[in-house]
Amino acid sequence: MSHNTSQLERLTFFSDAVFAIAITLLIIEVHVPHVSSIDDATYWHALAELGPSLLGFMVSFLVIGALWMSHHRVFGLLHDYSPKVMWPNMFLLMSMAFMPFATALMSSNPRARVPELVYSGTLLVAGLFQRRLFSIALRAPHVRTDVPPEEVTAARWRSWGLPTASALAFIGAWFLPGWNNFLLLLIPLLVRLYAAAGRRHALRQQAAEGA
Amino acid sequence: MSHNTSQLERLTFFSDAVFAIAITLLIIEVHVPHVSSIDDATYWHALAELGPSLLGFMVSFLVIGALWMSHHRVFGLLHDYSPKVMWPNMFLLMSMAFMPFATALMSSNPRARVPELVYSGTLLVAGLFQRRLFSIALRAPHVRTDVPPEEVTAARWRSWGLPTASALAFIGAWFLPGWNNFLLLLIPLLVRLYAAAGRRHALRQQAAEGA
Amino acid sequence: MSHNTSQLERLTFFSDAVFAIAITLLIIEVHVPHVSSIDDATYWHALAELGPSLLGFMVSFLVIGALWMSHHRVFGLLHDYSPKVMWPNMFLLMSMAFMPFATALMSSNPRARVPELVYSGTLLVAGLFQRRLFSIALRAPHVRTDVPPEEVTAARWRSWGLPTASALAFIGAWFLPGWNNFLLLLIPLLVRLYAAAGRRHALRQQAAEGA
Amino acid sequence: MSHNTSQLERLTFFSDAVFAIAITLLIIEVHVPHVSSIDDATYWHALAELGPSLLGFMVSFLVIGALWMSHHRVFGLLHDYSPKVMWPNMFLLMSMAFMPFATALMSSNPRARVPELVYSGTLLVAGLFQRRLFSIALRAPHVRTDVPPEEVTAARWRSWGLPTASALAFIGAWFLPGWNNFLLLLIPLLVRLYAAAGRRHALRQQAAEGA
Repeated sequence: MSHNTSQLERLTFFSDAVFAIAITLLIIEVHVPHVSSIDDATYWHALAELGPSLLGFMVSFLVIGALWMSHHRVFGLLHDYSPKVMWPNMFLLMSMAFMPFATALMSSNPRARVPELVYSGTLLVAGLFQRRLFSIALRAPHVRTDVPPEEVTAARWRSWGLPTASALAFIGAWFLPGWNNFLLLLIPLLVRLYAAAGRRHALRQQAAEGA
Repeated sequence: MSHNTSQLERLTFFSDAVFAIAITLLIIEVHVPHVSSIDDATYWHALAELGPSLLGFMVSFLVIGALWMSHHRVFGLLHDYSPKVMWPNMFLLMSMAFMPFATALMSSNPRARVPELVYSGTLLVAGLFQRRLFSIALRAPHVRTDVPPEEVTAARWRSWGLPTASALAFIGAWFLPGWNNFLLLLIPLLVRLYAAAGRRHALRQQAAEGA
Repeated sequence: MSHNTSQLERLTFFSDAVFAIAITLLIIEVHVPHVSSIDDATYWHALAELGPSLLGFMVSFLVIGALWMSHHRVFGLLHDYSPKVMWPNMFLLMSMAFMPFATALMSSNPRARVPELVYSGTLLVAGLFQRRLFSIALRAPHVRTDVPPEEVTAARWRSWGLPTASALAFIGAWFLPGWNNFLLLLIPLLVRLYAAAGRRHALRQQAAEGA
Repeated sequence: MSHNTSQLERLTFFSDAVFAIAITLLIIEVHVPHVSSIDDATYWHALAELGPSLLGFMVSFLVIGALWMSHHRVFGLLHDYSPKVMWPNMFLLMSMAFMPFATALMSSNPRARVPELVYSGTLLVAGLFQRRLFSIALRAPHVRTDVPPEEVTAARWRSWGLPTASALAFIGAWFLPGWNNFLLLLIPLLVRLYAAAGRRHALRQQAAEGA
């Protein structure tokens, strides 16, 4: 077990590194503007034109950050792992590594439909891989014994938050490209709702089994 | 607790990785000059033109390095953490990831006002997030019991050093863009002064409580 | 031994970081297209032209991911290491760091022969370094005592999978550049076959020695 | 002490990450050639023109790799550290982060004198910072007690190898730019010679003290 713990540590370590690189690489897609003169008005104008890039950097930073936090939270519930998590984890990391491209594509034309579809589609794929990863990782023998079962269910259910929000954003991209990203603001709300529903569901089931 | 320690380790690990990537990415904004001939004079001239970029690389390397050292010092005082540190830490990391852009913007026109405002503004924001992070992280139950309380106060107070210096540099950018960065040289002095004042304040309070 | 374990940990850590950076840097070779208009057809066309780059990103991500997983699996069998692994490991990492270039070269002209030779040649070199690394690392005193000897042989034999498949892809590049990469799909099959053959070989030898 | 060990671990961890990023970023300075036709001859020609970049990538990869290995070896002798190592370590990391630029500058015109001076000058500076770092780190109370004193002296002396070789390469750059890099091949020899001399020196001194 101490051996598996150290192998699990190395897996989380590698995942952390990919998350960290993807989140930091976002900035290299924000290019320093070339200006014709250095007076203030020219620069404020140039920075305003960078607005979508800067906003894209911030949104993607927060989204990848939130995905990392979920990874951190869920893997913190484990003391062992199944080799079956390796590939779903790798595919989750692949969608993270794709984020700098998807972000730059979206920021290059913030009102175009296709880039928005690619962006929310990437998040949707990431969300589904994350969902799959967590549902495999959170199986009985691998969860720490001091974690109450309803917390495991809550953790599993809350991973529906990102896929739900990004599916909505994906649909929204057809109708209101650019504005659809506001639907991502639902993520914090959705994960809380799903987690609460999962916890309630688990407690009800435990009560039914106890009865 | 051993579980929380390992979760805390993973948090510092992820933070270290973002610091390390941001600090190393600084160099990719320094572009190899295209020269028309390869004689020495041409090259020395080309390198002289790179001067602001090279200086910007060095200044930002030292500033990010100093921020990492503070992070290292403060988290070294903890044996546990509150989930409340997650977001302030993430915002601190976001301002670190922004540094390669802010540095390249400043170096592209070292005497323009707006880039200097962006640069010192980024440091100011980073300093305030760091300040917020440390004041949450250094709360009673999470600090190691062998750390004297006056050292905790000193650590909390010294985190005013960076925001103070970068607020001064921000104001200075209005009047003497470029030269204002010399105010960042105050950081080592300011952190020492704040730390000493915090330590004195804590000891005086302890004495008053003891009396 | 506890000292060597920590030195081994730092070696795997450094290796993980290089793997993680190489795998994430793949995306910066996929460039956001410049489009003349933002309607859907223009964008779908532009993304279709990016097809080879996106495919190259995915293939190389999976290949580097698989190489990391092997590294993770093999080093998980060790509790100590010989300084002799340092250079073969460094050369393996060098071929990993080369992958973003080899991938971008291949994707720039997916039907040209030379880029395909460079790409499968890089994988061949990586496979041979990995093979050499594992055969040094998996020597008797460094393997954990609870690992059955036939598993050590299986781990050693399975590392022939990548060199075999990439040698085939290298030859195929002469005749059907571009299509030759389908031969890389053999990797999962080949590693399984080699592992099974190695296990059988080891068990037969153990039986012979027991007799 | 267990606390300091964990702080030391985080320091080596951060250093490892910077080494790993600098070594992997080397490749992004090797640019995919634009070719007018995709026949073999055109491509071989284009790759031949990339020769200096590819060679620069390999040389710098090996040099940074060797510097990392020294760091790994020396920090493996420690069980504690002095805060005084922080800044010399940071300056060593700064010179590592500078390597992708120095390498790209050198590769852009492999026979020009100034780029060669910058490259070997960077190595010289890195070597001197490394030397300073190791001489501070390897002081009495921080070295593990099971390390024989002559090995500590050997580790301290061997860190003269890189500065010596790069000082020679720096001088050589004046006379034979490009060819001077062959002097870096002396590094493995020099570190061995210095280490042997240091070991002998320490043993002689021990004998004298014992007498």
